[in-house]
Amino acid sequence: MGLTFRKYWIPALLSREIQGRDSAPVRVKILGEDFVAFRDSEGKPGVVQAHCPHRGAHLFFGRTEDCGIRCAYHGWHFTVEGECTDIPIATPEVAERMKPKARIRALHVREAGDVVWVHFGSQPLPELPDFEFAAVPAGHRYVSKKLQQCNWAQAVEGGLDTAHFSYLHAGISNGTKVGLHEAGPSTPSWTQHNEPERLKTFRWLVEDGAPRFQIVNHAAGMLICAARTADDDQLYYRMTQYLMPNHSLTPGNAPQDTALGNTWVPIDDHSCWVYCYAWHPERPINDEERSRLEAGSGLFPAMDESFTPVRRRENDYLISRERQRTHSFTGIHGISEQDQAIADSQGLIADRTNELLCQTDIGVVRFREMILNAAQEVENERVPRGVDAPHAYRVRSGDVVVPQQTPIAEVLESRFGEMWGHPLTT
Amino acid sequence: MGLTFRKYWIPALLSREIQGRDSAPVRVKILGEDFVAFRDSEGKPGVVQAHCPHRGAHLFFGRTEDCGIRCAYHGWHFTVEGECTDIPIATPEVAERMKPKARIRALHVREAGDVVWVHFGSQPLPELPDFEFAAVPAGHRYVSKKLQQCNWAQAVEGGLDTAHFSYLHAGISNGTKVGLHEAGPSTPSWTQHNEPERLKTFRWLVEDGAPRFQIVNHAAGMLICAARTADDDQLYYRMTQYLMPNHSLTPGNAPQDTALGNTWVPIDDHSCWVYCYAWHPERPINDEERSRLEAGSGLFPAMDESFTPVRRRENDYLISRERQRTHSFTGIHGISEQDQAIADSQGLIADRTNELLCQTDIGVVRFREMILNAAQEVENERVPRGVDAPHAYRVRSGDVVVPQQTPIAEVLESRFGEMWGHPLTT
Amino acid sequence: MGLTFRKYWIPALLSREIQGRDSAPVRVKILGEDFVAFRDSEGKPGVVQAHCPHRGAHLFFGRTEDCGIRCAYHGWHFTVEGECTDIPIATPEVAERMKPKARIRALHVREAGDVVWVHFGSQPLPELPDFEFAAVPAGHRYVSKKLQQCNWAQAVEGGLDTAHFSYLHAGISNGTKVGLHEAGPSTPSWTQHNEPERLKTFRWLVEDGAPRFQIVNHAAGMLICAARTADDDQLYYRMTQYLMPNHSLTPGNAPQDTALGNTWVPIDDHSCWVYCYAWHPERPINDEERSRLEAGSGLFPAMDESFTPVRRRENDYLISRERQRTHSFTGIHGISEQDQAIADSQGLIADRTNELLCQTDIGVVRFREMILNAAQEVENERVPRGVDAPHAYRVRSGDVVVPQQTPIAEVLESRFGEMWGHPLTT
Repeated sequence: MGLTFRKYWIPALLSREIQGRDSAPVRVKILGEDFVAFRDSEGKPGVVQAHCPHRGAHLFFGRTEDCGIRCAYHGWHFTVEGECTDIPIATPEVAERMKPKARIRALHVREAGDVVWVHFGSQPLPELPDFEFAAVPAGHRYVSKKLQQCNWAQAVEGGLDTAHFSYLHAGISNGTKVGLHEAGPSTPSWTQHNEPERLKTFRWLVEDGAPRFQIVNHAAGMLICAARTADDDQLYYRMTQYLMPNHSLTPGNAPQDTALGNTWVPIDDHSCWVYCYAWHPERPINDEERSRLEAGSGLFPAMDESFTPVRRRENDYLISRERQRTHSFTGIHGISEQDQAIADSQGLIADRTNELLCQTDIGVVRFREMILNAAQEVENERVPRGVDAPHAYRVRSGDVVVPQQTPIAEVLESRFGEMWGHPLTT
Repeated sequence: MGLTFRKYWIPALLSREIQGRDSAPVRVKILGEDFVAFRDSEGKPGVVQAHCPHRGAHLFFGRTEDCGIRCAYHGWHFTVEGECTDIPIATPEVAERMKPKARIRALHVREAGDVVWVHFGSQPLPELPDFEFAAVPAGHRYVSKKLQQCNWAQAVEGGLDTAHFSYLHAGISNGTKVGLHEAGPSTPSWTQHNEPERLKTFRWLVEDGAPRFQIVNHAAGMLICAARTADDDQLYYRMTQYLMPNHSLTPGNAPQDTALGNTWVPIDDHSCWVYCYAWHPERPINDEERSRLEAGSGLFPAMDESFTPVRRRENDYLISRERQRTHSFTGIHGISEQDQAIADSQGLIADRTNELLCQTDIGVVRFREMILNAAQEVENERVPRGVDAPHAYRVRSGDVVVPQQTPIAEVLESRFGEMWGHPLTT
Repeated sequence: MGLTFRKYWIPALLSREIQGRDSAPVRVKILGEDFVAFRDSEGKPGVVQAHCPHRGAHLFFGRTEDCGIRCAYHGWHFTVEGECTDIPIATPEVAERMKPKARIRALHVREAGDVVWVHFGSQPLPELPDFEFAAVPAGHRYVSKKLQQCNWAQAVEGGLDTAHFSYLHAGISNGTKVGLHEAGPSTPSWTQHNEPERLKTFRWLVEDGAPRFQIVNHAAGMLICAARTADDDQLYYRMTQYLMPNHSLTPGNAPQDTALGNTWVPIDDHSCWVYCYAWHPERPINDEERSRLEAGSGLFPAMDESFTPVRRRENDYLISRERQRTHSFTGIHGISEQDQAIADSQGLIADRTNELLCQTDIGVVRFREMILNAAQEVENERVPRGVDAPHAYRVRSGDVVVPQQTPIAEVLESRFGEMWGHPLTT
């Protein structure tokens, strides 16, 4: 699976983690490998091997200067592309001879959507996936990341499992499960849905805890559509995008809402970074919204400055048994924290050998098929899904209410137009 | 040895760790296996598998309601017996079909002596061991537990090794080893023996550091009798009960004293819970005595609310070298802490390959023989000692002074009547 | 390599770690083995096996008394030589029979230079290496140790690599690398070289970052000589002693300066103690100098009472990126801390398979050859270099300025007289 990931562009860190020209170097671990990231004197980002090729000193302690990074041990200097440009400890002739051998590994780097993306492969590289959040003006988005303390795949599965919303994220009022909006003091502050029309959707989530699923594949992944009974004989559809190999767009937004997405990047087998995107296609995220997201709301947990959630594995997510009785299904504060708690609770790597899957797990099943199929493609030296279809990532997710019996094609058309996904050409 | 333990009833947690109806679930690890314990809406205790059979979410985050526990992820519901009673995410017909497959593992549970006991086996189950501490009125006992940071077996060996009392627990006065009572400020506050008659016993412990042992086997284990020279040509006997496979009753009490016992329950190979029992056959434990035990006294260490001793491996049991010179043999405060320190100090699992055993270690040797023999019995599909003799656990331990040359049978008769142990019938 | 180390005398702990008669026992771990060190009632130091031979209780909890250590469990007593002198739990006759079997392992111990040295081997033992720091009056030296959080060998390599001084320890002023002396507020307080003549040497270190090396072998190790261009067509030599198997004397001192040395003692494969020696051949270290060294200066870092540096692996040595831009090459405070950071950064055990060595690494290469050759000698049951030449350790290191083209023999003669090293006799 590591080889498969290395065919795709992957978020390595947030742009703001390396600020300004000659930024301080930071350690980055991706797919179990150690790197150092920094900006050079022109502000160009680089993600290079962690250790100096001379004697193995860690470049984290290096100096960013002279349009590159200089090892703190003996002053060897390297560019963001990995070229060795100075070996001051050798005589000039010897240095010239050694420099080509002293080239270091440098990942391919692009910056988009306030994220530094890397690619492990060699030329020719695919294009960056064409995410809408990265295409909108910077003021229209808020991007962050959070530490998840378990294997990436079960966390993705949580993101694709829209059925759990009827339980894990439910409120409790007078001893009964209720929509978030009715839960009084337990209502998460993050919700932007306080108009009466949106309140209904929360009620439908709780009233119909057994949604029916349809999956529509497309060139970059699939759209997972879950229908619940709404009022007046209508259906309430929540539609989640899964985009290969580790992205999702969340299903709970109407066209006029801020959209949300995630990317899960393995640090190692037992932890991952979850990149979180909030963006609005048509207007800026305003200061109040931005402050709320920074403080922790919805997909964005309260975190320390190392992007470690305040509520985490070590402290049982600060679960309150009292609030679990009276305010929310879990007693854990925050949608993000509830998701993280459940994913972590499945183990460092979830054991799938004894599951009892049912129809609402169809998205999870298809995710596993699709990712295993991609691994097979890579083994067969074929291009896995999505890599050569960057524009197929320009899709949307969200919810909609439609009459019963509406064909799924019409549901997608009515809600997304052409942005439901690009049809597979093969 | 794990299979052998699984033939016996084992303390899983204190009754008070799950309080009231629909208690908060707590994590329980026994013999390396993870469980969740809770009380249902009727107050009935359950100890069930940790992970939901659906997708593996941990039931610690579940909700106790509707006479069972409900998984926080998708609302599946299970009784204390492990029956799946609700799969709300499926249609009613599918749910009915799935429930039998969704049964979870539930240990057999009994409550006795303020302890929740579990049995791993299948029907027919043996009866609970008939401990006196569990049979007296609740007000006559005080029960707690403490974390021991090493393998269970060496901790049991410490409990059966009555010889070490002459050293490990001795006081120091003017540079000389003395009985606890003479040690002035180092006297542990726990002793109830402050009448002059009892003071002598402490002196005898120190004056005769090489006790002579006799072992009397019985249906549930053995009585380990250690004789020391007392005044006036008499013998001072201290007699410890070992009860299969992991219980002991301590040897230092006269008939009118509060009795004490322990059970060592493996958490994993490197740690165990030590259940601690204080009880009086004839009268309640009064408030002052109870407060003393709660604060830490004798077998009961000062602990935090997770039952982790304040003095522990990580902080060298707060040893004071100054007090080791002037007040006590170890410089460590508390009998319990002294015992825990020494057992831990033997290593996470004590290495027995290079021991130099002598006659005072006879109890340790017999313990090893008895427990290994039980493992052999289990391998041969026979019932190991004690399992089918629950009433043989209604025994006592304690001390007594007798004339030299008194036959051991008379010693037992004079001190315990018939409560020395049930003769083996085979 | 462990067998090779066991042929030499090794520092086990500082003399002051066990103070006075009947000192408190302390845990000592050397080459992965656990010991307990203490002083007996006569003040004689002992380093003995950690666990009592009776039942394996750790002797750290023992009592130092009666000219030996007494186990806290059952009172067995042992001398610093490992003799068992009391088994109070056995009858006298049995005890006499058991004592010879109860002998414990005791390392050979010598005290010199405020250090307790041990030897793992059997008689006949070599003599202690005849270090000058141990031969001067006690008031002429200051000795301490510090924890290094990586394998010993790469830390030694850092000590022998005099070339890095031009980079790792450089100051920064107005964005340019400068000698320590010009760096203003970043000047380490440790330097004793504040006279104008010495200032030049720091400038030469920075101006000539590619020193030329010559190595002179001798009976106890080698002298590593690095020449840099000085003013007026002269050469500035810095000469480091490497003494088998784990000692070095530093190169930066003139004859009138305090001399400095180090010994790296493996705790296990991933950490070592670095013993640090400062001494003056001709005069006492005065109180002000001593206070400075205690507080952390030069080779002596600021430490807690367990000899763990304040700046260490876990906190990135409190690196300041601001100070890295404006004051020093690393932004890490202190020469010792800079060295420790770089050695640690090479990994718990540095990977040498992909190095790009150049001419300035000649000392490192020769160290590896010499130590691997010693291991080969031990395998062939021959005495490795230095073991039978204790007086060959009475050497000095330091710097000197000489005219260009001065033969190395004359350089050594002019700076050290006969104290450059003892010629090899074979």
